[in-house]
Amino acid sequence: MGKDKVQIFDTTLRDGEQVPGCKLDTKQKLVLAERLEELGVDILEAGFPISSPGDFNSVNEISKIIKSATVCGLTRAVEKDIKVAAEALRYAKRPRIHTGIGTSESHIKYKFKTSQEEVIRRAVAAVKYAKSFVEDVEFFAEDAGRTDNDYLARVCEAVIKAGATVLNIPDTTGYCLPEEYGAKIKYLKENVTGIDKAILSCHCHNDLGLATANSIAGAINGARQIECTINGIGERAGNTSLEEVVMILKQHPDLNLDTNINTRLLFETSGMVSQKMGMPVQPNKAIVGTNAFAHSSGIHQDGVIKNRATYEIIDPEDVGVSESSIVLTARSGRAALAYRAKKVGYELTKLQLDEVYDNFLKFADVKKEIVDSDIHEIIETSNIELESLA
Amino acid sequence: MGKDKVQIFDTTLRDGEQVPGCKLDTKQKLVLAERLEELGVDILEAGFPISSPGDFNSVNEISKIIKSATVCGLTRAVEKDIKVAAEALRYAKRPRIHTGIGTSESHIKYKFKTSQEEVIRRAVAAVKYAKSFVEDVEFFAEDAGRTDNDYLARVCEAVIKAGATVLNIPDTTGYCLPEEYGAKIKYLKENVTGIDKAILSCHCHNDLGLATANSIAGAINGARQIECTINGIGERAGNTSLEEVVMILKQHPDLNLDTNINTRLLFETSGMVSQKMGMPVQPNKAIVGTNAFAHSSGIHQDGVIKNRATYEIIDPEDVGVSESSIVLTARSGRAALAYRAKKVGYELTKLQLDEVYDNFLKFADVKKEIVDSDIHEIIETSNIELESLA
Repeated sequence: MGKDKVQIFDTTLRDGEQVPGCKLDTKQKLVLAERLEELGVDILEAGFPISSPGDFNSVNEISKIIKSATVCGLTRAVEKDIKVAAEALRYAKRPRIHTGIGTSESHIKYKFKTSQEEVIRRAVAAVKYAKSFVEDVEFFAEDAGRTDNDYLARVCEAVIKAGATVLNIPDTTGYCLPEEYGAKIKYLKENVTGIDKAILSCHCHNDLGLATANSIAGAINGARQIECTINGIGERAGNTSLEEVVMILKQHPDLNLDTNINTRLLFETSGMVSQKMGMPVQPNKAIVGTNAFAHSSGIHQDGVIKNRATYEIIDPEDVGVSESSIVLTARSGRAALAYRAKKVGYELTKLQLDEVYDNFLKFADVKKEIVDSDIHEIIETSNIELESLA
Repeated sequence: MGKDKVQIFDTTLRDGEQVPGCKLDTKQKLVLAERLEELGVDILEAGFPISSPGDFNSVNEISKIIKSATVCGLTRAVEKDIKVAAEALRYAKRPRIHTGIGTSESHIKYKFKTSQEEVIRRAVAAVKYAKSFVEDVEFFAEDAGRTDNDYLARVCEAVIKAGATVLNIPDTTGYCLPEEYGAKIKYLKENVTGIDKAILSCHCHNDLGLATANSIAGAINGARQIECTINGIGERAGNTSLEEVVMILKQHPDLNLDTNINTRLLFETSGMVSQKMGMPVQPNKAIVGTNAFAHSSGIHQDGVIKNRATYEIIDPEDVGVSESSIVLTARSGRAALAYRAKKVGYELTKLQLDEVYDNFLKFADVKKEIVDSDIHEIIETSNIELESLA
């Protein structure tokens, strides 16, 4: 049996771009949009056209150049937003309008100061209006994470009847625990009449560090689209990291879920987004951080040198990193030192290695990382006679 | 009924320090150790004493200054490691030796080239030897995440009989899914004879972005210690983030779990660790990133201005951030502009706001972030008559 596909909905250029300090002009967005299509994203959310003339223009230009991915524009459940989005998307080969409204008590009571029934009415009206422009209409139930499941199911049922093709269930505040978010998707799968006519989509935020786990819990329970960004950038603590969810599905074949992403482009794409947006990626970022495949402790290095799989579950080449690195620090052991010494030309006997290792530790306690030129110095100042291979 | 306590085992100075590029000398470690005790960590893993003379010295000095937290030193299941650790810890008021060995097939077969029975024998011998120096002995079953549950239970049973007080179940490679890791802890809780004599501990790595979710799944299923680091630093993609697990337990009172952490020190502690270790924290890092409480999109800002809880689940003050920021960009709406304009002295009428907003968008499409001085310029170049409050 083939694996079920999970659609990757990339929102790097919309939710990701909604970040203080991240600057992208239309030209830069076009470069990234092309790269995201090459990466294999199924849907590319290009912007929020009504928000500014610059953003309208970006969505418009991206629509012209994207060949096969769906191009999506965000709107509120407001006629003028939808009309402007449809206009911005008019050159898209596969246009999608993404409209929606808050459904939690907090949103209905404090933001809209209205009633549950009125919110359903506005939701249905927005979907119907969007349908007058495009076939593919995604509906978001903002703050679904804190929306009562029974009411959420009623909203979903109503918008499916109005023609929504995708139902986005956002954990807008990043509050849900994975079990809770998974249960919400399961509830909708089981209780919404007509649910098979639409795709359920996970849109999670990372305020508590759970966006990735929540999205995977959603997919396990029946969602078939994940909304995410490169490097997990986005408002506040950001969105689900594209690279993390994609690699989890790849590394866990038992889940029987798959994506269309060419994972070998992940590392490079991460660097492009970071550089163009001016948003640094921390060295310990999963999958794409500069240390993600670096080993510095002796116990780990020894294991990796004997067999990569001892400490690495991902082959670095699978994400576009050429090889895992064995970094020499005061926490490194003899195996790593011998390995790196051999790489620069010294084949050490066991006795020589003992001698050199003691000298190495003295250097490493002072100088945090030992580079190749240091190895020469360490070996030359050790009390051994050498038969250098160099 | 009171909440169950989850012990926070901080390994910033041991597993966190095992990072290429992160440089800490003994003096810096002492400053951080004092701060970690002030933060309220229950156990402070200070280092791996056998690894180098510098690390031995750090554990030794930290042992002298820590007043009430347990101070812990790491060892392999090897006599000389344990002896040296005991020596390094001799001034600690509450010393703990952390010893262990790999238990997965990959570790037993490729790293140790031995048998399951021999690994149990070495584990028991190490725990007994450690017990001859200290009362509190934690045992780690390295790569427990990929160890067969039945064999893992046998290992746990044997080391509890030998006197282990804490059982560390590491997902060393960061491979587990939350459900799987939670089920492993549950299995041990239910199948290990004598399990009530020891505390189960989660030690998760973040290779797939799941360390936090896995640790929480462990706690939900009966673990009562979480091993973590500030900012989630550590080997490869790092360890579980202390700030994330602590805030999840705080924000989810239904879990009925609690820690001794003074959360108001989290943001400042994160900055100290980042600065001293030279390890940057990305702006979108959960809880402690500089953007974690910044709102820049119009929809969100409007909500937050009306009621903070619409988009924020954590009160920024709870983690030591003075207030959430309303950042003005081209994605901002009228509500945010009016809010920030008022802060710098302009009370705008609805009509004036419309006029100023159009002018604001032109500025914002060019200049990514609008600061207070820009607001003056924007208002002064708009076509309105002003009654300034300033």
